[in-house]
Amino acid sequence: MPTRPSRSLEVVSNPHPDRDYEVAMTAPEFTCVCPMTGQPDFATIRIRYVPDQHLVELKSLKLYLWSYRDEGAFHEDVTNRILNDFVTAARPRFVEVVGDFSVRGGIKTEVRATYGKRPEI
Amino acid sequence: MPTRPSRSLEVVSNPHPDRDYEVAMTAPEFTCVCPMTGQPDFATIRIRYVPDQHLVELKSLKLYLWSYRDEGAFHEDVTNRILNDFVTAARPRFVEVVGDFSVRGGIKTEVRATYGKRPEI
Amino acid sequence: MPTRPSRSLEVVSNPHPDRDYEVAMTAPEFTCVCPMTGQPDFATIRIRYVPDQHLVELKSLKLYLWSYRDEGAFHEDVTNRILNDFVTAARPRFVEVVGDFSVRGGIKTEVRATYGKRPEI
Amino acid sequence: MPTRPSRSLEVVSNPHPDRDYEVAMTAPEFTCVCPMTGQPDFATIRIRYVPDQHLVELKSLKLYLWSYRDEGAFHEDVTNRILNDFVTAARPRFVEVVGDFSVRGGIKTEVRATYGKRPEI
Amino acid sequence: MPTRPSRSLEVVSNPHPDRDYEVAMTAPEFTCVCPMTGQPDFATIRIRYVPDQHLVELKSLKLYLWSYRDEGAFHEDVTNRILNDFVTAARPRFVEVVGDFSVRGGIKTEVRATYGKRPEI
Amino acid sequence: MPTRPSRSLEVVSNPHPDRDYEVAMTAPEFTCVCPMTGQPDFATIRIRYVPDQHLVELKSLKLYLWSYRDEGAFHEDVTNRILNDFVTAARPRFVEVVGDFSVRGGIKTEVRATYGKRPEI
Amino acid sequence: MPTRPSRSLEVVSNPHPDRDYEVAMTAPEFTCVCPMTGQPDFATIRIRYVPDQHLVELKSLKLYLWSYRDEGAFHEDVTNRILNDFVTAARPRFVEVVGDFSVRGGIKTEVRATYGKRPEI
Amino acid sequence: MPTRPSRSLEVVSNPHPDRDYEVAMTAPEFTCVCPMTGQPDFATIRIRYVPDQHLVELKSLKLYLWSYRDEGAFHEDVTNRILNDFVTAARPRFVEVVGDFSVRGGIKTEVRATYGKRPEI
Amino acid sequence: MPTRPSRSLEVVSNPHPDRDYEVAMTAPEFTCVCPMTGQPDFATIRIRYVPDQHLVELKSLKLYLWSYRDEGAFHEDVTNRILNDFVTAARPRFVEVVGDFSVRGGIKTEVRATYGKRPEI
Amino acid sequence: MPTRPSRSLEVVSNPHPDRDYEVAMTAPEFTCVCPMTGQPDFATIRIRYVPDQHLVELKSLKLYLWSYRDEGAFHEDVTNRILNDFVTAARPRFVEVVGDFSVRGGIKTEVRATYGKRPEI
Repeated sequence: MPTRPSRSLEVVSNPHPDRDYEVAMTAPEFTCVCPMTGQPDFATIRIRYVPDQHLVELKSLKLYLWSYRDEGAFHEDVTNRILNDFVTAARPRFVEVVGDFSVRGGIKTEVRATYGKRPEI
Repeated sequence: MPTRPSRSLEVVSNPHPDRDYEVAMTAPEFTCVCPMTGQPDFATIRIRYVPDQHLVELKSLKLYLWSYRDEGAFHEDVTNRILNDFVTAARPRFVEVVGDFSVRGGIKTEVRATYGKRPEI
Repeated sequence: MPTRPSRSLEVVSNPHPDRDYEVAMTAPEFTCVCPMTGQPDFATIRIRYVPDQHLVELKSLKLYLWSYRDEGAFHEDVTNRILNDFVTAARPRFVEVVGDFSVRGGIKTEVRATYGKRPEI
Repeated sequence: MPTRPSRSLEVVSNPHPDRDYEVAMTAPEFTCVCPMTGQPDFATIRIRYVPDQHLVELKSLKLYLWSYRDEGAFHEDVTNRILNDFVTAARPRFVEVVGDFSVRGGIKTEVRATYGKRPEI
Repeated sequence: MPTRPSRSLEVVSNPHPDRDYEVAMTAPEFTCVCPMTGQPDFATIRIRYVPDQHLVELKSLKLYLWSYRDEGAFHEDVTNRILNDFVTAARPRFVEVVGDFSVRGGIKTEVRATYGKRPEI
Repeated sequence: MPTRPSRSLEVVSNPHPDRDYEVAMTAPEFTCVCPMTGQPDFATIRIRYVPDQHLVELKSLKLYLWSYRDEGAFHEDVTNRILNDFVTAARPRFVEVVGDFSVRGGIKTEVRATYGKRPEI
Repeated sequence: MPTRPSRSLEVVSNPHPDRDYEVAMTAPEFTCVCPMTGQPDFATIRIRYVPDQHLVELKSLKLYLWSYRDEGAFHEDVTNRILNDFVTAARPRFVEVVGDFSVRGGIKTEVRATYGKRPEI
Repeated sequence: MPTRPSRSLEVVSNPHPDRDYEVAMTAPEFTCVCPMTGQPDFATIRIRYVPDQHLVELKSLKLYLWSYRDEGAFHEDVTNRILNDFVTAARPRFVEVVGDFSVRGGIKTEVRATYGKRPEI
Repeated sequence: MPTRPSRSLEVVSNPHPDRDYEVAMTAPEFTCVCPMTGQPDFATIRIRYVPDQHLVELKSLKLYLWSYRDEGAFHEDVTNRILNDFVTAARPRFVEVVGDFSVRGGIKTEVRATYGKRPEI
Repeated sequence: MPTRPSRSLEVVSNPHPDRDYEVAMTAPEFTCVCPMTGQPDFATIRIRYVPDQHLVELKSLKLYLWSYRDEGAFHEDVTNRILNDFVTAARPRFVEVVGDFSVRGGIKTEVRATYGKRPEI
């Protein structure tokens, strides 16, 4: 079994910090483990943010999301934890994280959480 | 004939009660019975809510929706009753219930009811 | 030729009059006659309303729409007349009627009329 | 009530009778009456044919389909009758008629009948 | 709880028995019960057949499908049983039954069975 | 070569002038000529308006749009000119004209112009 | 009014004449004139061919299709004439021309004609 | 980290072995690991088979696919290995396995392998 | 290797400067080079603006976007630079630039930046 | 300007040479240069092949397609050249190459060429 990456989000300088603008990233390859059944869960993670001084580095985001692969995580909790980690790492002016999970028990669940006030852009 | 589940919605603690966030659940496998004709009706139930202290437990929601399988229920009424039961069980800050029913008499009906004021998220 | 139904919309009591909620009905099987050419016209009628004391009964709506089958009616006029009849019969808090007519002369026409102020739901 | 057109399909000369080629016509504005309930039925009629000496004139086809507006007709029967009338009028090398009817009783029905052997084109 | 209909498929005379033609019916409102878990299953049933002397009556098909509502049935078995009952009742020249079941355990299952040799139509 | 129609938009009386309502027309069969290259351009024209005392007559709109067939016209200009002519002819409370032009040089262009303040409907 | 191009299809050498391969071109910007009403017709022209010694030059095809802009042409005839001109100019091993015309009288028409025997590719 | 299931496919008796029929299963929640980079890969696995004496049990298939979660596997190889294991376990008359993998290096890859001759069904 | 165009955006006079209206251009054929890996990146660029005294000339926009073909450019930066150049050249009342980039590392990125306050149109 | 990769396709051993199976790769990020105008062209390249002793290595295919970035190439020619290079490198039992090019002059072109006889799989 390969080694899982450590959980960290790298940032780079925002080359246009004077302007409010929006970056939207869609990651359809997210998987974690259901804490109750131990079985794998699958989701698309969508992140939309307005950077302040930092941009999140794309490869680091891929590794960060990968780090959940063996972790037990409830839908509502993991979406909020990704939001918290994103805020800690990038200090954005605004960020929205959506966890769009696959069907379980005939029901599909999507969790959406935000930080900050969305600027008018 | 299998035994129908009793009608109750279980809740668990919201791990992020300090934040307004949204949980959206889509259940395309809802069926009840038309009170006038006795024939089965089919719907997709969509629930979107902002939790306060509690989250609705997914399996319990599946059983709750299942409990309508043999019950006579008008479209407008059953959507509002699901809303009422959801409010009673989960005490959310906001919740919207949509009942999207299949075609009857060449007409498709969708009922949408809400409780609380939708926070800006 | 079968007998056309008389033009009347039946209502039933709204079981949840204390709450603003929305009922949306889509009827893709509407046909009337062009008053200028005498040829049939086809439309989808969409009605979205917030009931007050009454709900419109579904079968009665089907018969009501059927009653236009042999009637000459301009697109703009018939959409408004359906709105007027709906208001008279159901006294809703808000209602929107859309007549989405098929292509004539290479142009598609959609008429949308409302009554009342749409509550925030 | 306007006068219904008589039921006849007009033809014109095929300008390219030496070649097998295919003409496909889609008419989404077909309506007739259910012989059991007296209520209107709706369908899309699709006709695909390989002409021999004659083409079916488009306006005449429109009037022909219109002529069913007040007629009681079962799905399977009316599709075959349109096929028979088409064959009588146009004597095509091959023709397929599809009647794609709207949902009744929660079930959608599509009837497909052909005349002649489809040439390889 | 309403009374379930008995399981029988009614037929009517085929008005065009001299011709091979195809009737396709799509019934998205099928539900039965999983024999292992006792929980409801949902499917769309699609039937495509070439009638011989009989057509299946539409309302009877609706009631027939409804009769499975409380019955335990595996996906593969119930599709084949519907095929068998259809053959017994209608004696078609050809028939295909598809059971297109909803997701269970993250996997969607579709079963397709036929009787007779499909004529070239 | 057939004679092009003269450029005029006919109006008829609005049968419901007391109410703000919306008429939306979509005309996918618009063509004019590029003033720089002399080559044909193609567009879908969409008009959405709130009538005051007059409705635009549908056949007249078809002829009006046809009248551009041989005229040299830049995308931005022709969309605004259609808007101006519509305002002159119909004196609507509000109107939006969209010219949705086909790809040129690998780039698709859509122009949207309005007159008046859109009422809340 | 701009000058219409003369009607000619230019060809270039096929750089791979030893191989059967297929070229498919889709031209959604075709317009001609209805010979009965004098009004414009619109179509998408699709050409799929297996070249022999020549390829059709793309710009020349654009001009060729443009040349029909002011010409009266029935749907069935113009599709076959495009096929004939294509065969004369390019002498392909196989070619299929489809004329997919816009709705007239509520009916959409598509004409498909071929020359030669389609090789297995 | 949860324990991975052992790799085995369970079968049950085919209740209709006298008939050739088809079972198609779609599993969009497949993940393994790239043997070159150690990074996760994602795929939808589609299996379509004609059972002989055995059906593959659905839950066992879910566990079987789960067992690849930590395994290094090339796209072409893993698809063929799933096919081999399926044949060994179920001895079907025919089976097709498709591995539809997500984009890597801007290229999407789909592998399709079969065992046996597909019967005409 | 062909010569790349110099980077400049040409403008022409806005023929309707008295009116706020919107021009939306979609360019799916944008490519630049990743500054970290040297490998090509691909995007659709969407520009939506309200012109003041000038319109951007379409062919010049095509050449401008082409000029990035060999340039190293991060997603966030290049979108903002296109916005800056557009503002410098056209001095619009409002403009939004979207860079919709293809998948890299399993993640799709879309950047959206604006200049000025969007007028109500 | 970055250095372009040399044009070579690497292969690896086919781990399942005893079986006919199919590998389909879709590369939407292909660009070359029009030999007549010097302007960039864009295409999606789709390759579907049945390997014999070798598989084409994915990263090498990406570099190979990249190598056309600055090369003048006609649509029909470049598709056949990719086919030839693929055959030379991988010696497949069958291969189909499709070049699906973007709109030029209002016309979209797709070229499809094959090598070998497609096995029944």
